[in-house]
Amino acid sequence: MTTISIIGSGNMADAIGTRAAKHGHTVEIISRNPAKAEALAQRIGGRASVGTFGSRPAGEIVIVAVLFAGAADAVAQFGESLAGKTLVDISNPFNDDASGVVTTPGDSVSERIAKVAPESAHVVKAFNTIFGGVIARDEPLDVFFAGDDVAAKAEFAALLSSMGMRPLDAGGLGAAHALEWAGILLMGLANNGAGFGSALGVK
Amino acid sequence: MTTISIIGSGNMADAIGTRAAKHGHTVEIISRNPAKAEALAQRIGGRASVGTFGSRPAGEIVIVAVLFAGAADAVAQFGESLAGKTLVDISNPFNDDASGVVTTPGDSVSERIAKVAPESAHVVKAFNTIFGGVIARDEPLDVFFAGDDVAAKAEFAALLSSMGMRPLDAGGLGAAHALEWAGILLMGLANNGAGFGSALGVK
Repeated sequence: MTTISIIGSGNMADAIGTRAAKHGHTVEIISRNPAKAEALAQRIGGRASVGTFGSRPAGEIVIVAVLFAGAADAVAQFGESLAGKTLVDISNPFNDDASGVVTTPGDSVSERIAKVAPESAHVVKAFNTIFGGVIARDEPLDVFFAGDDVAAKAEFAALLSSMGMRPLDAGGLGAAHALEWAGILLMGLANNGAGFGSALGVK
Repeated sequence: MTTISIIGSGNMADAIGTRAAKHGHTVEIISRNPAKAEALAQRIGGRASVGTFGSRPAGEIVIVAVLFAGAADAVAQFGESLAGKTLVDISNPFNDDASGVVTTPGDSVSERIAKVAPESAHVVKAFNTIFGGVIARDEPLDVFFAGDDVAAKAEFAALLSSMGMRPLDAGGLGAAHALEWAGILLMGLANNGAGFGSALGVK
């Protein structure tokens, strides 16, 4: 059991926070909008609390669950208060019609976050290939992730396992861009027959 | 039961041809190297035959199973003899260390093939997210595919189903680039714990 901080109060923050709380973790919700954070913490219930945007989060693992365009900026605003934290980038930098991504190899949102985060922080890409509704179902689930720091990845993988998810390591942070494209693949499959209840996985 | 032509005589040609033959299809192997084509046709056995490189293939579905760098050139050499055919691009345009692809959005190998193929031919991307050894196991398997022509995709999906594979439509040919990145994701997963017997799929 650990404390997880989530920056954001939308659909994904809700799904991840609710599932984490169900599996015994303490969840802290942090939003620029304190009322929204409070509402989500109440919905999650249990020991869920509200943190202050820009201040040091309670959790060692911090899920950055804001829209991709604002993700690096949000992390930058926390400055040194994110020192030593594991930052989980869940963003999907889709273009307007979700036919591709607006990022390029070597410049994924994860890598942009790593550039503005404290040097002692570690960035992991994950959860961007799963619909929030699928996370919320609380069923067994494969989760792809990528990151450069072995210890941070091991800690994150243990968290996933504790939430009934199977961690699947896709490699270093350079693989984050492949995961961003996997988000496009998932959208394509969902829109062409697989549906929005489907999830990518490994057999 | 149908006739499938395969351009190529390597690992993937072997795996796809063998599985197709096992499920009752007639396989034609076409290679620049007739001896290699003959050897593969013999290995596949049954009614497998050898076609002539550059001449009209026997099958309505033609699997282009050559290395990515030569795929468009091979198709170009067939010229109008591929009129009306469904061309299945299985290539993975990996860079040297398989950390990314050498193609760009809108310029996938599939789209390059479509540019040099007869106008009446239809290109489908498929099989590039599956290791040959996994196809050869002849177990149930998810196969992602992408293409612009609805009828060609339906015909190809029926072929997959007949081979014990579940067809999963990822969208138009523009989605071929997402599939190329999915090849990178699969390599990353395989290299970081999932192993080379693993396969991407949908749950």
